[in-house]
Amino acid sequence: MDLSQRNPIENVFSTKDEKISIAGWVQQVRNLGGLRFIQLQDRTGIVQVVLPKKKVSEEIFNIDFQEGDIIAVSGTIVSNDGAPKGKEILPSDIEIINKRTQEYPISISDKIETNPDKRYDYRFLDLRNRKVAHIFEIESTAAYAIQQWFKDNDFLQFFSAKIVGSATESGANVFEIGYFDKKAYLAQSPQFYKQMMLMAGFERVFEIGPVFRAEKHHTSRHLCEYTSIDFEISYINDQRDVMKVLQGVIGYALDTIKSSRADSLEELEVQIDDQPKEWPIITIPECNDVLTNEGKELDLYEDLDAEAERIIGNYAKEKWNSDFVFVDQYPWKVRPFYTMKDDEDPRLTKSFDLLFKGQELTTGGQREHRVDILSTQAVEKDFKLEDVDSYLQFFRNGAPPHGGSGTGIERFVQKILDLPNIREARLLPRDPTRLHP
Amino acid sequence: MDLSQRNPIENVFSTKDEKISIAGWVQQVRNLGGLRFIQLQDRTGIVQVVLPKKKVSEEIFNIDFQEGDIIAVSGTIVSNDGAPKGKEILPSDIEIINKRTQEYPISISDKIETNPDKRYDYRFLDLRNRKVAHIFEIESTAAYAIQQWFKDNDFLQFFSAKIVGSATESGANVFEIGYFDKKAYLAQSPQFYKQMMLMAGFERVFEIGPVFRAEKHHTSRHLCEYTSIDFEISYINDQRDVMKVLQGVIGYALDTIKSSRADSLEELEVQIDDQPKEWPIITIPECNDVLTNEGKELDLYEDLDAEAERIIGNYAKEKWNSDFVFVDQYPWKVRPFYTMKDDEDPRLTKSFDLLFKGQELTTGGQREHRVDILSTQAVEKDFKLEDVDSYLQFFRNGAPPHGGSGTGIERFVQKILDLPNIREARLLPRDPTRLHP
Repeated sequence: MDLSQRNPIENVFSTKDEKISIAGWVQQVRNLGGLRFIQLQDRTGIVQVVLPKKKVSEEIFNIDFQEGDIIAVSGTIVSNDGAPKGKEILPSDIEIINKRTQEYPISISDKIETNPDKRYDYRFLDLRNRKVAHIFEIESTAAYAIQQWFKDNDFLQFFSAKIVGSATESGANVFEIGYFDKKAYLAQSPQFYKQMMLMAGFERVFEIGPVFRAEKHHTSRHLCEYTSIDFEISYINDQRDVMKVLQGVIGYALDTIKSSRADSLEELEVQIDDQPKEWPIITIPECNDVLTNEGKELDLYEDLDAEAERIIGNYAKEKWNSDFVFVDQYPWKVRPFYTMKDDEDPRLTKSFDLLFKGQELTTGGQREHRVDILSTQAVEKDFKLEDVDSYLQFFRNGAPPHGGSGTGIERFVQKILDLPNIREARLLPRDPTRLHP
Repeated sequence: MDLSQRNPIENVFSTKDEKISIAGWVQQVRNLGGLRFIQLQDRTGIVQVVLPKKKVSEEIFNIDFQEGDIIAVSGTIVSNDGAPKGKEILPSDIEIINKRTQEYPISISDKIETNPDKRYDYRFLDLRNRKVAHIFEIESTAAYAIQQWFKDNDFLQFFSAKIVGSATESGANVFEIGYFDKKAYLAQSPQFYKQMMLMAGFERVFEIGPVFRAEKHHTSRHLCEYTSIDFEISYINDQRDVMKVLQGVIGYALDTIKSSRADSLEELEVQIDDQPKEWPIITIPECNDVLTNEGKELDLYEDLDAEAERIIGNYAKEKWNSDFVFVDQYPWKVRPFYTMKDDEDPRLTKSFDLLFKGQELTTGGQREHRVDILSTQAVEKDFKLEDVDSYLQFFRNGAPPHGGSGTGIERFVQKILDLPNIREARLLPRDPTRLHP
């Protein structure tokens, strides 16, 4: 069969043609004596192929089908109320393209629950389950939408180095590489390079790329490798300009998923609520009041814990009907040295967390661009100035006010779909014990 | 000044307004007694700000400007035939946003030639040279166009693991990582995962991401880290289906650069020729004839050397007026074990190189999807079957015919712009001696 002539299976249910050629893998075979059924699946859907002994050739009727075989089918589209979605294929020609040569090592049906570790071991089969495949279709849609938004808003897309010569931001939690006769490290974020691009004069830059964290955590929220959506902009007035970009791009991605992946969302039984036109902003002092009202006492010059995030998330949903809320003026104590301090209260900063459904999605804010203040802050955070010298170098040759943020695409997808574990949104999860496949 | 009100400098030359607010860095200062000139630059262009002692306030006239200072200027647009592009700014207000605190360590003018190594050391300043900035604007345009094309053609965008548990494809040339108490490696290509995605049922997948090669080469063509445009498609008839995708996406990127980066191309003095509607395909036996005619003898069951590529490139330009040519049926000897062999001559394969201006841009082709043949080919290429077992695993559970290719975006941009060294097209080059910035 000329495979370029094949149709996606979903066309079976929409075309007005009577004849069709399709191909895919055998998802299920049932033999009922004189009648055989095959569920044939491709990336667009599943259709029933019916083999009545009396209506197909003996050769076709006797083919030894197995789950996983790759076959091509040409035939007639027949209406049948008993078939899924009311249509099935009566084949005139079947070609076995490739036979499966072993039993599936895991079940890919929802009916049998396989433990997640085993599913990740056999991710290539796990993905034949449509519910799993939809997660990555949605992630793909998110990535395309994000790239589209940045393009439409005149951002430069760039590709920074992932192998770095020194572990600037924090000595801990970096993976070390043997680099010829030297040591090198895997980048924990493109932060250094994003800011470099602004000092170089680009003004609006973004990157989607991998980041690496050698964290020994084994939780449902941590990965040792993930995909970060990072942007940085210059000539800003303050962190609110960063929030505007973030709402723009994340809001656009969410809207796009809602409108173009309605089928996936329906199959996953997920609803995406409409968001308010402007996402609410709540400051740390305002958070304090809300938490106190809820009977939760927290030192807000420290950090928001998971419970506090949940309370603020609920508050935003109730008060503004918003799944998103910016927590502004985040405490200096838990921010990196390059964060700009708040004008009024130096225990606070011009930076924020974006919460999505009561959980941190993004950290962002304005960066300190005045090299004397930046140096002082580095010392305050216990850096030796010589260790951050190549970073400070950027700021000695003219630095505009600027800021930006970073968002893990897996966290975003996890929260949209309410997935229990972030590994579900990562094609090939990496954690302290998982290095395969 | 409210920076959100600022205009891009290029607007000075197109707006009908008389007043304008702009910001950027001081590119040059000239003092001529009662008259001072500043060249102010942002990412969109350069404009002259003129300070006649008699027409501006004493305070403004006396500001101590230095190359690299970040300033905001509000003023009147004045026509002046003596000014670059015929217009200049007479300022009513100037705000120093941030002062440069040290001398530029390199010149960013074309008039002084700085050696490339020193330029890469100070890449953030090197990029303030518009000719250097244009390279990465074009790379950004290429990346966006490629993502757009894949989206429009219904490809799934995915993000594979860059940390891998074993060095499958070839033991050599991989970077080793300390991964907690284990060893891991940096991925040399997403080949394994692209094919995995097809076995999972996705049919059309692509990724733009970093790849890592621990090659000790120190040439103008090699990098230890680069950005690969990788795609893979299934249910193909043969490698010609792969070529079609490749022409589609690379051709679209080239057309987009030509149409939307005309200014950059002009400043870089580069012309992009129109390409034929279908890029020519020449087989290895046909190459043999062409080379023999040119007095070049080469064993075509081996490999094309650089001179042979150049001859074939020239031949394609002369015969088909094409900068691109597919060299089909590439020799088996120089292809990885998963390449599908040619039906007629097993010393050849169903794979190709795409030459661009007489140099290899891309390698692609059909992959072997039949696990028995694949296993035999692995042994033929000296693999132990247990070492490729997790790869073969994909093919035991149903594998459709498929193929794909990988293209380095730096190589593509280098060839478009005829850059002498691939490092010029890599923001942060990595080679055996270069790990910074």
